Amino acid sequence: MLLPEPIRRLIDALSRLPGIGPKTASRLTFHLLRADGGLSAELSTALANLRTGTATCQLCFNITTAGKELCPVCANADRDRSLICVVEEPLDVLALERTGGYKGLYHVLGGALSPIEGIGPDDLKIADLLTRVRAGGVQEVIVGTNPSMEGDATAMYLQQQLAPLGARLTRLARGLPMGGDLEYADQNTLLRALAGRQSMS
Amino acid sequence: MLLPEPIRRLIDALSRLPGIGPKTASRLTFHLLRADGGLSAELSTALANLRTGTATCQLCFNITTAGKELCPVCANADRDRSLICVVEEPLDVLALERTGGYKGLYHVLGGALSPIEGIGPDDLKIADLLTRVRAGGVQEVIVGTNPSMEGDATAMYLQQQLAPLGARLTRLARGLPMGGDLEYADQNTLLRALAGRQSMS
Repeated sequence: MLLPEPIRRLIDALSRLPGIGPKTASRLTFHLLRADGGLSAELSTALANLRTGTATCQLCFNITTAGKELCPVCANADRDRSLICVVEEPLDVLALERTGGYKGLYHVLGGALSPIEGIGPDDLKIADLLTRVRAGGVQEVIVGTNPSMEGDATAMYLQQQLAPLGARLTRLARGLPMGGDLEYADQNTLLRALAGRQSMS
Repeated sequence: MLLPEPIRRLIDALSRLPGIGPKTASRLTFHLLRADGGLSAELSTALANLRTGTATCQLCFNITTAGKELCPVCANADRDRSLICVVEEPLDVLALERTGGYKGLYHVLGGALSPIEGIGPDDLKIADLLTRVRAGGVQEVIVGTNPSMEGDATAMYLQQQLAPLGARLTRLARGLPMGGDLEYADQNTLLRALAGRQSMS
Protein backbone atom coordinates (compact mmCIF):
# COMPACT_ATOMS: atom_id res chain seq x y z
CA MET A 1 0.00 0.00 0.00
CA LEU A 2 2.62 2.43 1.15
CA LEU A 3 5.17 1.48 -1.52
CA PRO A 4 4.81 2.70 -5.12
CA GLU A 5 3.85 -0.11 -7.49
CA PRO A 6 7.18 -0.19 -9.44
CA ILE A 7 9.03 -0.79 -6.18
CA ARG A 8 6.65 -3.49 -4.97
CA ARG A 9 6.90 -5.19 -8.35
CA LEU A 10 10.71 -5.37 -8.27
CA ILE A 11 10.71 -6.56 -4.65
CA ASP A 12 8.23 -9.31 -5.58
CA ALA A 13 10.30 -10.41 -8.58
CA LEU A 14 13.58 -10.43 -6.63
CA SER A 15 11.94 -12.40 -3.80
CA ARG A 16 11.31 -15.22 -6.26
CA LEU A 17 15.06 -15.81 -6.64
CA PRO A 18 16.56 -18.61 -4.54
CA GLY A 19 18.08 -17.45 -1.25
CA ILE A 20 16.57 -13.97 -1.53
CA GLY A 21 13.78 -13.22 0.94
CA PRO A 22 11.52 -10.15 1.10
CA LYS A 23 13.98 -8.26 3.32
CA THR A 24 16.97 -8.77 1.02
CA ALA A 25 14.76 -8.00 -1.97
CA SER A 26 13.72 -4.63 -0.57
CA ARG A 27 17.30 -3.83 0.47
CA LEU A 28 18.45 -4.54 -3.10
CA THR A 29 15.59 -2.52 -4.59
CA PHE A 30 16.34 0.54 -2.47
CA HIS A 31 20.02 0.18 -3.25
CA LEU A 32 19.19 0.26 -6.96
CA LEU A 33 17.01 3.33 -6.40
CA ARG A 34 19.86 5.15 -4.67
CA ALA A 35 22.66 3.93 -6.95
CA ASP A 36 23.24 5.62 -10.28
CA GLY A 37 20.72 4.56 -12.92
CA GLY A 38 23.33 2.63 -14.89
CA LEU A 39 23.21 -0.45 -12.71
CA SER A 40 19.47 -1.08 -12.94
CA ALA A 41 19.56 -0.40 -16.70
CA GLU A 42 22.51 -2.79 -17.14
CA LEU A 43 20.79 -5.48 -15.06
CA SER A 44 17.57 -5.03 -17.02
CA THR A 45 19.32 -5.44 -20.37
CA ALA A 46 21.46 -8.36 -19.18
CA LEU A 47 18.32 -10.16 -17.97
CA ALA A 48 16.52 -9.52 -21.24
CA ASN A 49 19.47 -10.94 -23.22
CA LEU A 50 20.08 -13.92 -20.95
CA ARG A 51 17.88 -16.41 -22.74
CA THR A 52 18.04 -15.05 -26.27
CA GLY A 53 21.83 -14.95 -26.10
CA THR A 54 22.44 -18.49 -24.91
CA ALA A 55 21.88 -21.99 -26.22
CA THR A 56 22.52 -25.58 -25.17
CA CYS A 57 25.48 -27.54 -26.55
CA GLN A 58 24.06 -30.26 -28.79
CA LEU A 59 26.70 -32.75 -27.68
CA CYS A 60 27.16 -32.32 -23.92
CA PHE A 61 24.20 -30.04 -23.00
CA ASN A 62 26.50 -27.49 -21.39
CA ILE A 63 25.52 -23.85 -21.90
CA THR A 64 26.90 -22.04 -24.95
CA THR A 65 26.48 -18.86 -26.98
CA ALA A 66 23.32 -18.59 -29.09
CA GLY A 67 23.82 -19.75 -32.66
CA LYS A 68 26.65 -22.16 -31.77
CA GLU A 69 26.00 -25.87 -31.94
CA LEU A 70 28.81 -26.85 -29.59
CA CYS A 71 30.13 -25.40 -26.32
CA PRO A 72 33.76 -24.22 -26.18
CA VAL A 73 34.87 -27.51 -24.59
CA CYS A 74 33.25 -29.77 -27.19
CA ALA A 75 34.43 -27.49 -30.00
CA ASN A 76 38.04 -27.64 -28.77
CA ALA A 77 39.97 -30.17 -30.88
CA ASP A 78 42.64 -30.50 -28.17
CA ARG A 79 40.29 -32.11 -25.65
CA ASP A 80 40.51 -35.84 -25.04
CA ARG A 81 37.35 -37.23 -26.67
CA SER A 82 37.76 -40.67 -25.10
CA LEU A 83 36.94 -39.27 -21.66
CA ILE A 84 33.51 -38.02 -20.52
CA CYS A 85 32.83 -36.50 -17.12
CA VAL A 86 29.12 -36.62 -16.24
CA VAL A 87 27.95 -33.70 -14.08
CA GLU A 88 24.60 -32.36 -12.90
CA GLU A 89 24.79 -28.67 -13.88
CA PRO A 90 26.75 -26.26 -16.13
CA LEU A 91 28.20 -24.71 -12.94
CA ASP A 92 29.86 -28.07 -12.20
CA VAL A 93 31.61 -27.87 -15.59
CA LEU A 94 32.88 -24.41 -14.63
CA ALA A 95 34.18 -25.70 -11.29
CA LEU A 96 36.07 -28.54 -12.97
CA GLU A 97 37.41 -26.27 -15.73
CA ARG A 98 38.71 -23.88 -13.09
CA THR A 99 40.96 -26.64 -11.72
CA GLY A 100 42.71 -26.82 -15.09
CA GLY A 101 43.24 -30.52 -14.37
CA TYR A 102 40.70 -32.11 -16.68
CA LYS A 103 41.22 -32.45 -20.41
CA GLY A 104 38.26 -34.63 -21.44
CA LEU A 105 34.70 -33.76 -22.47
CA TYR A 106 31.62 -33.36 -20.29
CA HIS A 107 28.01 -34.46 -20.20
CA VAL A 108 25.58 -32.21 -18.33
CA LEU A 109 22.59 -34.18 -17.05
CA GLY A 110 20.55 -31.12 -16.09
CA GLY A 111 19.98 -32.29 -12.52
CA ALA A 112 19.98 -35.50 -10.49
CA LEU A 113 17.44 -38.27 -9.90
CA SER A 114 15.06 -37.31 -7.13
CA PRO A 115 11.87 -39.30 -6.48
CA ILE A 116 10.79 -36.64 -3.98
CA GLU A 117 10.92 -33.86 -6.57
CA GLY A 118 9.57 -36.22 -9.22
CA ILE A 119 12.75 -36.17 -11.32
CA GLY A 120 13.18 -39.49 -13.12
CA PRO A 121 15.72 -40.73 -15.71
CA ASP A 122 13.64 -39.30 -18.56
CA ASP A 123 13.91 -35.79 -17.11
CA LEU A 124 17.72 -35.94 -17.35
CA LYS A 125 19.99 -36.25 -20.38
CA ILE A 126 20.77 -39.88 -19.55
CA ALA A 127 19.54 -41.42 -22.84
CA ASP A 128 21.78 -38.94 -24.71
CA LEU A 129 24.75 -40.03 -22.60
CA LEU A 130 24.11 -43.69 -23.44
CA THR A 131 23.89 -42.77 -27.13
CA ARG A 132 27.24 -40.97 -26.89
CA VAL A 133 28.91 -43.95 -25.22
CA ARG A 134 27.32 -46.45 -27.63
CA ALA A 135 28.63 -44.44 -30.57
CA GLY A 136 32.08 -45.69 -29.53
CA GLY A 137 35.45 -44.10 -28.85
CA VAL A 138 34.71 -43.48 -25.17
CA GLN A 139 37.21 -45.25 -22.92
CA GLU A 140 36.19 -43.87 -19.54
CA VAL A 141 33.11 -42.23 -18.04
CA ILE A 142 33.82 -40.31 -14.83
CA VAL A 143 30.69 -39.87 -12.74
CA GLY A 144 30.92 -36.39 -11.24
CA THR A 145 27.46 -36.09 -9.69
CA ASN A 146 27.29 -34.37 -6.30
CA PRO A 147 28.18 -36.29 -3.14
CA SER A 148 24.53 -36.12 -2.02
CA MET A 149 21.62 -38.56 -1.79
CA GLU A 150 20.39 -37.54 -5.24
CA GLY A 151 23.90 -37.57 -6.72
CA ASP A 152 24.52 -41.03 -5.30
CA ALA A 153 21.21 -42.36 -6.64
CA THR A 154 22.05 -40.93 -10.06
CA ALA A 155 25.54 -42.47 -9.95
CA MET A 156 24.07 -45.91 -9.14
CA TYR A 157 21.55 -45.63 -11.95
CA LEU A 158 24.28 -44.58 -14.40
CA GLN A 159 26.38 -47.54 -13.28
CA GLN A 160 23.55 -49.97 -14.11
CA GLN A 161 22.98 -48.38 -17.48
CA LEU A 162 26.62 -47.94 -18.49
CA ALA A 163 28.00 -51.28 -17.22
CA PRO A 164 26.98 -53.29 -20.33
CA LEU A 165 28.52 -50.73 -22.71
CA GLY A 166 32.14 -51.61 -22.00
CA ALA A 167 33.58 -48.18 -21.10
CA ARG A 168 35.51 -47.91 -17.84
CA LEU A 169 33.38 -46.28 -15.14
CA THR A 170 34.88 -44.20 -12.32
CA ARG A 171 33.60 -41.76 -9.74
CA LEU A 172 35.20 -38.65 -8.24
CA ALA A 173 36.89 -39.53 -4.92
CA ARG A 174 35.19 -38.62 -1.69
CA GLY A 175 37.02 -37.93 1.55
CA LEU A 176 38.37 -35.09 3.63
CA PRO A 177 38.40 -31.75 1.80
CA MET A 178 41.82 -30.08 1.42
CA GLY A 179 42.50 -27.55 4.13
CA GLY A 180 39.79 -29.19 6.23
CA ASP A 181 40.14 -30.26 9.81
CA LEU A 182 39.45 -33.80 11.03
CA GLU A 183 37.87 -32.34 14.13
CA TYR A 184 35.24 -30.47 12.14
CA ALA A 185 34.57 -33.04 9.43
CA ASP A 186 31.03 -34.41 9.52
CA GLN A 187 30.44 -38.09 10.30
CA ASN A 188 29.60 -39.13 6.74
CA THR A 189 32.67 -37.48 5.26
CA LEU A 190 34.83 -39.17 7.88
CA LEU A 191 33.21 -42.56 7.23
CA ARG A 192 33.86 -42.10 3.50
CA ALA A 193 37.44 -41.08 4.14
CA LEU A 194 37.96 -44.21 6.27
CA ALA A 195 36.31 -46.54 3.76
CA GLY A 196 38.32 -45.01 0.92
CA ARG A 197 41.68 -44.96 2.76
CA GLN A 198 44.66 -45.40 0.48
CA SER A 199 47.89 -47.30 0.93
CA MET A 200 50.88 -45.06 1.66
CA SER A 201 53.56 -47.70 1.13
CA MET B 1 36.26 -17.35 -21.56
CA LEU B 2 34.27 -20.51 -21.08
CA LEU B 3 30.98 -18.75 -20.31
CA PRO B 4 28.87 -17.20 -23.07
CA GLU B 5 28.93 -13.39 -22.97
CA PRO B 6 25.26 -12.90 -21.96
CA ILE B 7 25.84 -15.07 -18.88
CA ARG B 8 29.06 -13.31 -17.91
CA ARG B 9 27.34 -9.97 -18.33
CA LEU B 10 24.49 -10.86 -15.97
CA ILE B 11 26.88 -12.36 -13.41
CA ASP B 12 28.94 -9.15 -13.50
CA ALA B 13 25.88 -6.93 -13.08
CA LEU B 14 24.47 -9.02 -10.21
CA SER B 15 27.88 -9.03 -8.47
CA ARG B 16 27.66 -5.25 -8.23
CA LEU B 17 24.66 -5.53 -5.88
CA PRO B 18 25.42 -5.28 -2.15
CA GLY B 19 25.83 -8.62 -0.41
CA ILE B 20 25.98 -10.55 -3.68
CA GLY B 21 29.37 -12.00 -4.55
CA PRO B 22 30.46 -13.72 -7.77
CA LYS B 23 29.34 -17.15 -6.48
CA THR B 24 25.83 -16.04 -5.56
CA ALA B 25 25.63 -14.08 -8.81
CA SER B 26 26.39 -17.16 -10.91
CA ARG B 27 24.02 -19.30 -8.85
CA LEU B 28 21.24 -16.76 -9.49
CA THR B 29 22.11 -16.52 -13.19
CA PHE B 30 21.98 -20.27 -13.70
CA HIS B 31 18.76 -20.44 -11.73
CA LEU B 32 17.24 -17.87 -14.10
CA LEU B 33 18.48 -19.89 -17.08
CA ARG B 34 16.82 -23.03 -15.76
CA ALA B 35 13.63 -21.38 -14.49
CA ASP B 36 10.82 -20.57 -16.91
CA GLY B 37 11.51 -17.47 -18.97
CA GLY B 38 8.83 -15.47 -17.18
CA LEU B 39 10.96 -14.65 -14.15
CA SER B 40 13.89 -13.09 -16.02
CA ALA B 41 11.48 -11.15 -18.27
CA GLU B 42 9.54 -9.90 -15.22
CA LEU B 43 12.74 -8.90 -13.45
CA SER B 44 14.01 -7.12 -16.56
CA THR B 45 10.80 -5.09 -16.94
CA ALA B 46 10.57 -4.31 -13.22
CA LEU B 47 14.16 -3.02 -13.26
CA ALA B 48 13.51 -0.90 -16.35
CA ASN B 49 10.44 0.66 -14.67
CA LEU B 50 12.03 1.17 -11.27
CA ARG B 51 13.33 4.68 -11.82
CA THR B 52 10.83 5.95 -14.37
CA GLY B 53 7.94 4.81 -12.15
CA THR B 54 9.06 6.43 -8.90
CA ALA B 55 9.64 9.94 -7.59
CA THR B 56 10.66 11.67 -4.37
CA CYS B 57 8.07 13.23 -2.06
CA GLN B 58 8.58 17.00 -2.20
CA LEU B 59 7.82 17.39 1.50
CA CYS B 60 9.52 14.52 3.32
CA PHE B 61 11.75 13.01 0.57
CA ASN B 62 10.26 9.56 1.03
CA ILE B 63 9.78 7.55 -2.15
CA THR B 64 6.49 7.90 -4.03
CA THR B 65 4.82 7.04 -7.33
CA ALA B 66 5.99 9.01 -10.38
CA GLY B 67 3.83 12.07 -11.09
CA LYS B 68 2.77 12.50 -7.45
CA GLU B 69 4.13 15.43 -5.50
CA LEU B 70 3.57 13.88 -2.06
CA CYS B 71 4.07 10.39 -0.64
CA PRO B 72 1.03 8.53 0.77
CA VAL B 73 1.95 9.57 4.33
CA CYS B 74 2.27 13.31 3.60
CA ALA B 75 -0.87 13.20 1.42
CA ASN B 76 -2.90 11.61 4.22
CA ALA B 77 -4.97 14.32 5.96
CA ASP B 78 -5.38 12.11 9.06
CA ARG B 79 -1.69 12.21 9.97
CA ASP B 80 -0.55 14.41 12.83
CA ARG B 81 1.33 17.25 11.10
CA SER B 82 2.79 18.58 14.36
CA LEU B 83 5.05 15.53 14.64
CA ILE B 84 8.05 14.78 12.39
CA CYS B 85 10.15 11.64 12.67
CA VAL B 86 13.57 12.06 11.01
CA VAL B 87 14.96 8.86 9.49
CA GLU B 88 17.88 7.97 7.24
CA GLU B 89 16.22 5.93 4.48
CA PRO B 90 12.79 5.20 2.95
CA LEU B 91 13.10 1.65 4.34
CA ASP B 92 13.09 3.14 7.85
CA VAL B 93 9.74 4.78 7.07
CA LEU B 94 8.42 1.37 6.04
CA ALA B 95 9.67 -0.23 9.25
CA LEU B 96 7.97 2.42 11.39
CA GLU B 97 4.76 2.26 9.34
CA ARG B 98 4.66 -1.49 9.83
CA THR B 99 4.42 -0.99 13.59
CA GLY B 100 1.16 0.91 13.09
CA GLY B 101 2.13 2.95 16.16
CA TYR B 102 3.17 6.23 14.59
CA LYS B 103 0.70 8.78 13.29
CA GLY B 104 2.96 11.75 12.49
CA LEU B 105 4.90 12.69 9.36
CA TYR B 106 8.44 11.76 8.36
CA HIS B 107 11.57 13.39 7.03
CA VAL B 108 13.95 11.18 5.06
CA LEU B 109 17.52 12.50 5.23
CA GLY B 110 18.86 10.20 2.53
CA GLY B 111 21.65 8.83 4.71
CA ALA B 112 23.66 9.79 7.78
CA LEU B 113 26.68 12.03 8.39
CA SER B 114 29.88 10.12 7.71
CA PRO B 115 33.23 11.91 7.47
CA ILE B 116 34.82 8.62 6.34
CA GLU B 117 32.51 8.31 3.35
CA GLY B 118 32.63 12.07 2.80
CA ILE B 119 28.95 12.61 3.58
CA GLY B 120 28.43 16.06 5.13
CA PRO B 121 25.28 18.00 6.14
CA ASP B 122 24.89 19.37 2.62
CA ASP B 123 24.60 15.85 1.19
CA LEU B 124 21.56 15.15 3.38
CA LYS B 125 18.13 16.80 3.44
CA ILE B 126 18.95 18.66 6.65
CA ALA B 127 18.39 22.20 5.33
CA ASP B 128 14.94 21.10 4.11
CA LEU B 129 14.15 19.75 7.58
CA LEU B 130 15.11 23.09 9.18
CA THR B 131 12.90 24.89 6.65
CA ARG B 132 9.98 22.60 7.55
CA VAL B 133 10.41 23.23 11.28
CA ARG B 134 10.92 26.99 10.81
CA ALA B 135 7.68 27.15 8.82
CA GLY B 136 5.91 26.48 12.14
CA GLY B 137 3.29 24.06 13.41
CA VAL B 138 5.85 21.39 14.36
CA GLN B 139 5.67 20.56 18.07
CA GLU B 140 8.05 17.63 18.23
CA VAL B 141 10.88 16.25 16.11
CA ILE B 142 11.68 12.59 16.83
CA VAL B 143 15.22 11.70 15.74
CA GLY B 144 15.00 8.17 14.35
CA THR B 145 18.49 7.82 12.89
CA ASN B 146 20.13 4.42 13.32
CA PRO B 147 21.78 3.49 16.66
CA SER B 148 25.19 3.55 14.95
CA MET B 149 28.22 5.87 14.94
CA GLU B 150 26.90 7.71 11.89
CA GLY B 151 23.34 7.82 13.23
CA ASP B 152 24.59 9.21 16.55
CA ALA B 153 26.70 11.86 14.83
CA THR B 154 23.71 12.87 12.71
CA ALA B 155 21.48 13.03 15.80
CA MET B 156 23.98 15.30 17.57
CA TYR B 157 24.23 17.59 14.56
CA LEU B 158 20.43 17.76 14.28
CA GLN B 159 20.22 18.61 17.97
CA GLN B 160 22.56 21.58 17.50
CA GLN B 161 20.63 22.81 14.48
CA LEU B 162 17.13 22.25 15.83
CA ALA B 163 17.65 23.45 19.42
CA PRO B 164 17.17 27.18 18.62
CA LEU B 165 13.94 26.52 16.70
CA GLY B 166 11.76 25.77 19.71
CA ALA B 167 10.29 22.37 18.77
CA ARG B 168 10.60 19.55 21.29
CA LEU B 169 13.40 17.17 20.32
CA THR B 170 13.32 13.46 21.20
CA ARG B 171 15.17 10.34 20.13
CA LEU B 172 14.00 6.73 19.76
CA ALA B 173 14.84 4.75 22.92
CA ARG B 174 17.81 2.42 22.91
CA GLY B 175 18.07 -0.67 25.07
CA LEU B 176 17.50 -4.41 25.00
CA PRO B 177 15.54 -5.59 21.95
CA MET B 178 12.26 -7.38 22.67
CA GLY B 179 12.63 -11.15 22.71
CA GLY B 180 16.35 -10.67 23.21
CA ASP B 181 18.44 -12.37 25.84
CA LEU B 182 20.60 -10.46 28.34
CA GLU B 183 23.23 -13.17 27.99
CA TYR B 184 23.64 -12.51 24.26
CA ALA B 185 23.26 -8.72 24.27
CA ASP B 186 26.41 -6.90 23.17
CA GLN B 187 28.27 -4.67 25.61
CA ASN B 188 27.15 -1.38 24.08
CA THR B 189 23.48 -2.33 24.06
CA LEU B 190 23.75 -3.42 27.68
CA LEU B 191 25.51 -0.17 28.66
CA ARG B 192 22.74 1.81 26.91
CA ALA B 193 20.07 -0.26 28.63
CA LEU B 194 21.72 0.42 32.02
CA ALA B 195 22.13 4.15 31.37
CA GLY B 196 18.55 4.43 30.16
CA ARG B 197 17.00 2.35 32.96
CA GLN B 198 13.47 3.37 33.86
CA SER B 199 11.72 3.59 37.20
CA MET B 200 9.25 0.79 37.82
CA SER B 201 7.53 2.32 40.83
